[in-house]
Amino acid sequence: MCELLGMSANVPTDICFSFSGLIRRGGATGPHKDGWGIAFYEGRSLREFRDPQPSYVSEMARFVRDYPIKSRIVISHIRQANVGGVALENTHPFARELWGRIWCFAHNGQLYTYDDLVSSHFSPVGTTDSERAFCWLLGGIKDQLGSERAGMIDPLAEIIKCHCDRLRERGVFNMLFSDSEHLFVYCSTKLSWITRRSPFGKATLHDEDITVDFEQVTTPNDVVTVIATEPLTRNETWHSMQPGELLVFKDGAVVRRLV
Amino acid sequence: MCELLGMSANVPTDICFSFSGLIRRGGATGPHKDGWGIAFYEGRSLREFRDPQPSYVSEMARFVRDYPIKSRIVISHIRQANVGGVALENTHPFARELWGRIWCFAHNGQLYTYDDLVSSHFSPVGTTDSERAFCWLLGGIKDQLGSERAGMIDPLAEIIKCHCDRLRERGVFNMLFSDSEHLFVYCSTKLSWITRRSPFGKATLHDEDITVDFEQVTTPNDVVTVIATEPLTRNETWHSMQPGELLVFKDGAVVRRLV
Repeated sequence: MCELLGMSANVPTDICFSFSGLIRRGGATGPHKDGWGIAFYEGRSLREFRDPQPSYVSEMARFVRDYPIKSRIVISHIRQANVGGVALENTHPFARELWGRIWCFAHNGQLYTYDDLVSSHFSPVGTTDSERAFCWLLGGIKDQLGSERAGMIDPLAEIIKCHCDRLRERGVFNMLFSDSEHLFVYCSTKLSWITRRSPFGKATLHDEDITVDFEQVTTPNDVVTVIATEPLTRNETWHSMQPGELLVFKDGAVVRRLV
Repeated sequence: MCELLGMSANVPTDICFSFSGLIRRGGATGPHKDGWGIAFYEGRSLREFRDPQPSYVSEMARFVRDYPIKSRIVISHIRQANVGGVALENTHPFARELWGRIWCFAHNGQLYTYDDLVSSHFSPVGTTDSERAFCWLLGGIKDQLGSERAGMIDPLAEIIKCHCDRLRERGVFNMLFSDSEHLFVYCSTKLSWITRRSPFGKATLHDEDITVDFEQVTTPNDVVTVIATEPLTRNETWHSMQPGELLVFKDGAVVRRLV
């Protein structure tokens, strides 16, 4: 099992505060000691940091926590290995290019069968069930959606929902996925989210004694959604997702919901 | 124009010393101020750091310089922009997955025509001539070499040489390229290399007043080749490559030479 953290925002926003909470769970307050990764979209490209070391002791995690990279879409993951050894190639998030966009993916859960998930377009580099599912999902999108429909959200969301439902039949499949414009969030068992808008308040992390006053670090027009396996803060109300629910975020707001 | 740095070694080796020399050229002792990147193969995966900021002032470049990541194949690049704006998506090295391997690429030079370089398998994310050439090269490999011949070095080297010769007709095309096992080095105008083996001596960087005694940081069986646009040290003899020459390195040694 693993922990997921995602962000969608309408302006480039730093995720340091939420990431501080997540990396504590990587071996300190949680059992997720088998690596961590974070990917920030920046323009059309993706900035990735991944490390098979526990996030709690990783020098690179500290660098990322203290280096305020601003992004509109972030996908992060800390890992407790089940399928696949502790190695960089098995560390989420995974990314591939399709139609000149970078697609990024992280998974929480475990699939009980996955050897038959194959694509002629994308192949896993590592040995996880997760990367195999990602290659199969992205290959399905390429097969079913021509490049000329790449920017159309409705058929894309339907294909993703259909693939995720099939993956959920094989085990636990909570997922964050992005095409560099939208953040797709699929819940199999457990995911929560919160959208912060003006007037912003203060929030205190569950895992560390840190409080942030978002009013000080935002402007009145900012819309920022954070998605996590479990709520990261203790004085805010988070939404729990339903099993089988797909949410599509763009610019910090829900733009589609498929159940 | 840009500066390239590559390494091939038979044991995981840190490149901090050579990278120190390269990043000084990124805005301090050279004009290459439009970003930098470095990719380290680690097992089957790739660890990448890229930044559109000048390497000389980049916090991330300092982190990488001081963080001894060990790798058998490294590709690095500092950029002076010609085609494509200063942005993360235009920052080398570029990477794609093919047949479950990560392929990585960096280019020094400029192509005068490149719009017709297209592949149905890989598309550029940014707007550089370099990424377009990379997608065309890798797409050609996929078209001409089936996955069952992916590990065969002779047909692969011939396809790469043929594509590079055609790219050289369009401008300047010095290249570092890897399939995660070999390092392919193609010279269009300017590239030098040196192989260090036991007995190791001392080397002093051209660009900084730093000397390393390799005897202290190696074992007698280590074989380490460094490739750079221009020699990085002032008290060693580097080999100059010939225009049109392709060298293939594996485990630090030349295994093929095509001219």
